[in-house]
Amino acid sequence: MPQEAELLSVLTRIFSQQRNDGVVLGIGDDAAVVKAALTPIALASDMAVEGTHFNRNWSSLYEIGAKVTSANLADIFAMGGRPEYILVAAALPKNFSLEEIEELALGIFDEAASVGASVIGGDLTFSDRMVISMSVFGSVATPITRSGAKVGDLVVLSQLTGESAAGLAILQRGILNGDSAEHRNPTVNYEKASAISAIAHAMTDVSDGLISELNQIAQASKVQIEIEKKSLEAADGFAHLASLATEHGGDIWEWILHGGEDHAFLATVPANLTIPAGFVTIGRVVEGSRVLVDGFIAEHQGFNHFE
Amino acid sequence: MPQEAELLSVLTRIFSQQRNDGVVLGIGDDAAVVKAALTPIALASDMAVEGTHFNRNWSSLYEIGAKVTSANLADIFAMGGRPEYILVAAALPKNFSLEEIEELALGIFDEAASVGASVIGGDLTFSDRMVISMSVFGSVATPITRSGAKVGDLVVLSQLTGESAAGLAILQRGILNGDSAEHRNPTVNYEKASAISAIAHAMTDVSDGLISELNQIAQASKVQIEIEKKSLEAADGFAHLASLATEHGGDIWEWILHGGEDHAFLATVPANLTIPAGFVTIGRVVEGSRVLVDGFIAEHQGFNHFE
Repeated sequence: MPQEAELLSVLTRIFSQQRNDGVVLGIGDDAAVVKAALTPIALASDMAVEGTHFNRNWSSLYEIGAKVTSANLADIFAMGGRPEYILVAAALPKNFSLEEIEELALGIFDEAASVGASVIGGDLTFSDRMVISMSVFGSVATPITRSGAKVGDLVVLSQLTGESAAGLAILQRGILNGDSAEHRNPTVNYEKASAISAIAHAMTDVSDGLISELNQIAQASKVQIEIEKKSLEAADGFAHLASLATEHGGDIWEWILHGGEDHAFLATVPANLTIPAGFVTIGRVVEGSRVLVDGFIAEHQGFNHFE
Repeated sequence: MPQEAELLSVLTRIFSQQRNDGVVLGIGDDAAVVKAALTPIALASDMAVEGTHFNRNWSSLYEIGAKVTSANLADIFAMGGRPEYILVAAALPKNFSLEEIEELALGIFDEAASVGASVIGGDLTFSDRMVISMSVFGSVATPITRSGAKVGDLVVLSQLTGESAAGLAILQRGILNGDSAEHRNPTVNYEKASAISAIAHAMTDVSDGLISELNQIAQASKVQIEIEKKSLEAADGFAHLASLATEHGGDIWEWILHGGEDHAFLATVPANLTIPAGFVTIGRVVEGSRVLVDGFIAEHQGFNHFE
């Protein structure tokens, strides 16, 4: 591990390239300080553990940094908010070089900068198994929760889910190619989140699998959600995913319905409004308390968040 | 690991016992939401790794929860701020029971509630080696940094440092008794931090060792700091620490000058003002760039934070 002063200098240089006007005091003291906030504040935290959420045999440190950051940013967008500030706490192996820390920091920086968010502080410690935990602080004029779905709403998805799960399955077969790019560093379409949040009644990001998230919305909103496979089959990317499933012996519906970490945005919207471009309508909200796929009760799977 | 719904219910019950008026949305959605802030906001993060920062053979889960929380709260108080909201991210062994998670959560809750701070969200995941990372969000009307020390200031300390290091040394000898209580769950005197912040020019908490923190203040403030051992010898608790050093063959000055994790508050204050009760004056700020102990250059040790 490099000397503290040298490390501080490199991290300050990287992260000061994107510094919101609101930053009063950045990296280097007991706490960072930002200006008073004019709108309600959204706060979320997401932790990633080596071997569970990422693997250094498959992913570069840049990709790992970007992936953990996108998972964190997605939580704020999924509330209808805009991320502003990020704290990064990391436990790294003692033999990490300055160059390795810099690569990880650049992945974090680039993903954060893509939405105008600033890394303003954090903590660095040691562990043989890497752990990265971030907290994001954002503004949210009107929070869009999981509990706002209304009977009659349509259920929409920003992109087909399952690419991350497919990538993981391919990597687990020992194949490292472009087909797993979405697992190693998911492309999260933050603009779509902003677009749908203007009309959404309920919203979340698909971090734990589509069915799991649908169940969260159904339970929180006290409604039933019915989706149809044929709408997912018609989505962009389905044919590619089907060919990967055939090639690698995977279960495409397991990937789509129960795979996590794509960070697609899932929302319910009033049926009479125009849905933003690029969203797939996958079903509707009705009275009841379950999640049905083509009329059958979908098993609740997935476990993760309690934020 | 218990079922998610059951876990969420227990955590919500524990943490909703202390809920600031500003909480719009607590645990259970993609992000927590709090009201707009009227004053500047202090943000800090601190991560603790099993084996490095705590040890389940020595400490109860309640003690571990409280200890990690106090380290996080101390960072906000060390800026002259008041902690308000906490996010908790934890990686726990898969075989943890609901009762074990509840005990950890109660330790976190009690320490946070002691200063009126609310746990409003977080993340829970798995790791064979426990990791707990928190982020604290507080209000800070006037940030007190490490860079404000002025020539002529007195250097004051809220309590004698070294008890945590002494406790660790005793535990490492295989002895589990009351003499290590301050290592297992440090008593942090938050009121003293508030009292000194009213007059301090510079301030920090001693998380990485007294000399390390003095060097941070000296470098950030571009001043020299000279302290005297006899002032530390006169502090409450010195005789007890000396007896522990004799009993266990420890180096009392290593504990006092380089031991961390006591979270004593260290500040520089104008010499003409009345110092709040209970503080020990250990030295003074002069022109120069070093830290001297009884006239000798103190070696810089300790490594940790880059927040």
